Amino acid sequence: MGDSATTTTGGDKDSDNNREVCSEVNRIIEESKELQESASNLISKNSIEEASLRQRALALDSNIKIVKSFISSELKKGALDSKHADKLGEDLSRASYTLSEGDAATFLPCKSHGRFLRMFLGPINVRANRKDVQLKVKEEYYSFRDRTAYLFLIFPSLLLGLRSWLWDGCFPALPVQLYQAWLLFLYTGLALRENILRVNGSDIRPWWIYHHYCAMAMALISLTWEIERQPDCAQKQKGIQLFLRWAIMQGVAMLLQNRYQRQRLYTRIALGKARRMDVVWGETAGVKGQLWLLLPILFVLQAFEAYVGVLLLQTAVAGVISEWQVITCGILLITMAVGNFANTVQTLVLKSQFKAKMKKGKSRNDLTQVSPTLKDQ
Amino acid sequence: MGDSATTTTGGDKDSDNNREVCSEVNRIIEESKELQESASNLISKNSIEEASLRQRALALDSNIKIVKSFISSELKKGALDSKHADKLGEDLSRASYTLSEGDAATFLPCKSHGRFLRMFLGPINVRANRKDVQLKVKEEYYSFRDRTAYLFLIFPSLLLGLRSWLWDGCFPALPVQLYQAWLLFLYTGLALRENILRVNGSDIRPWWIYHHYCAMAMALISLTWEIERQPDCAQKQKGIQLFLRWAIMQGVAMLLQNRYQRQRLYTRIALGKARRMDVVWGETAGVKGQLWLLLPILFVLQAFEAYVGVLLLQTAVAGVISEWQVITCGILLITMAVGNFANTVQTLVLKSQFKAKMKKGKSRNDLTQVSPTLKDQ
Repeated sequence: MGDSATTTTGGDKDSDNNREVCSEVNRIIEESKELQESASNLISKNSIEEASLRQRALALDSNIKIVKSFISSELKKGALDSKHADKLGEDLSRASYTLSEGDAATFLPCKSHGRFLRMFLGPINVRANRKDVQLKVKEEYYSFRDRTAYLFLIFPSLLLGLRSWLWDGCFPALPVQLYQAWLLFLYTGLALRENILRVNGSDIRPWWIYHHYCAMAMALISLTWEIERQPDCAQKQKGIQLFLRWAIMQGVAMLLQNRYQRQRLYTRIALGKARRMDVVWGETAGVKGQLWLLLPILFVLQAFEAYVGVLLLQTAVAGVISEWQVITCGILLITMAVGNFANTVQTLVLKSQFKAKMKKGKSRNDLTQVSPTLKDQ
Repeated sequence: MGDSATTTTGGDKDSDNNREVCSEVNRIIEESKELQESASNLISKNSIEEASLRQRALALDSNIKIVKSFISSELKKGALDSKHADKLGEDLSRASYTLSEGDAATFLPCKSHGRFLRMFLGPINVRANRKDVQLKVKEEYYSFRDRTAYLFLIFPSLLLGLRSWLWDGCFPALPVQLYQAWLLFLYTGLALRENILRVNGSDIRPWWIYHHYCAMAMALISLTWEIERQPDCAQKQKGIQLFLRWAIMQGVAMLLQNRYQRQRLYTRIALGKARRMDVVWGETAGVKGQLWLLLPILFVLQAFEAYVGVLLLQTAVAGVISEWQVITCGILLITMAVGNFANTVQTLVLKSQFKAKMKKGKSRNDLTQVSPTLKDQ
């Protein structure tokens, strides 16, 4: 349009302007078409290359597994001496590490998103393609837990403090309910984030995610729980009071855990033992010396959790408060305490088995998996 | 290892086996290195090409805007006749459509994720790169809303039915609280999904997202609301009863809306007017004839919502139930009703202005944006 006019008729500025706008618009149309073409080319070229890489990664992954099992069967038959097998196992572990931790990991099939994420978010993909983004997500998860731990300390301490200084030994409903709503938000956020981490390749123990589902349920139920203000409130609010004390202890434990687990994770990453997306909710992963500080706190915490649960059930049986919420919360607390205890012990057992193995054959690698159901220490 | 041995010493099967395993392990190590290299090459090559496409897309986008504003200023000055300007405007709109709807859209900067998503999910990216995935997300959002609408009808109908047939005119607490918990989950899910849609390029009206934040707050507050079972429960449960009736109407309206908005969206997509990620929560987008069925229902619904809000405030003022929850829920309901009404009217006004424009200059395009604050009809 206007391109065919080779000479201007002179003096007509508007016509010049028109021509200029026309050619600019034409250029824009051309550019938009070209851009669309380049974009679609890049995308289709990528999807072909990615498919081929995916195939190679998958084949390599299964190959490693086959050779690993072949080696251990040969070792059993005595066809391979153990030193040689160890060396080969180490090589394979290194290859497997390169595959799962390097850029190729992007092309390994991704873990299913799970019902929980699909329920809240729909079918959106939450897997980060780039390793640095995945690490950013994990870092943010840790800092979220840090912020959380402080609030976990401050919130219940404040409530308990105000109760004795200001509220004459009786909690008013609103502040307690605000705290419960915060707990609900917090546990939902943690459960969502942990599911996202799992999709991004972290091998967080499933229990810690279930644990947060239980905690979500409890926070929700406690919201419907009537905060009694009748004359004998001190008696009827005993449950809340115990729960808040437990929460303070939980805050202290979380702070300790966060600090030492992060440290330990960095050490393990440096040693090449842990993959970088691992999250150590497993509560026994303290740096060696600090483990002896953390472990008693964890066990006391779990015992106290179960104790609060039992007390709640007792009040329900004795008929002081007979709402269904009391019974359900009691059962949930006991379930969480037992689950936490079992998982802590399991992690400890795994750890000591691993250590024993390391001592036995100094250079021996974690080629043959330690069965997680073994409980002998 | 073992590669240098050119002749087997014969008969030694184990040694043969060893050599085979060795060479297989070596092959695996090689392959893992190569794969890592290819993956990292592809990723870095991609990020370079993507950066260049991103730059081009951005430049084109701003160029289109500049030329658009230049044309409208020339039109005002009279330096460009309106027919010509319309033609150019149409061309530009087409280019802009190609840019924002084609594969190049992937490379346009993404909308900020917003506080709500970051609060629940952390810094994970929820933008789908491929258009077909984005459309799948939107489709799933619609089917989520469909399922929701049925539950929105069934749940409160059941509660109201059971109340008169089984519960002697008094709601027990648990079923009502289950319903409230479901509402909380539902609104959280909707708010998360709509935020995700927004990131994926939908231009959903911000009000409908705020509306769901309000609804979330109300569901949360209603959970802490004591369900009275004292002798005069019929009086004290009036609020719940009204709310449930409103919910049934809401269910009917949602079903109508979902059906007609989807239809209408498909028509609009076919006509190339709407971008494919648009979500029509704007409640006035029915297919023409059906609009006259939908609109009265919507306005009655909004009036009823405000009425329930006012009734709640009245009971609080009269002192029948004087909990803070009653007052807050009343205010929230009135806010939502007013906001919904204002947004419905705004959409209607925009629509009629657009139609008037279309009539005035048949082929005229929506080049000059209709101001959304105009309210004269």
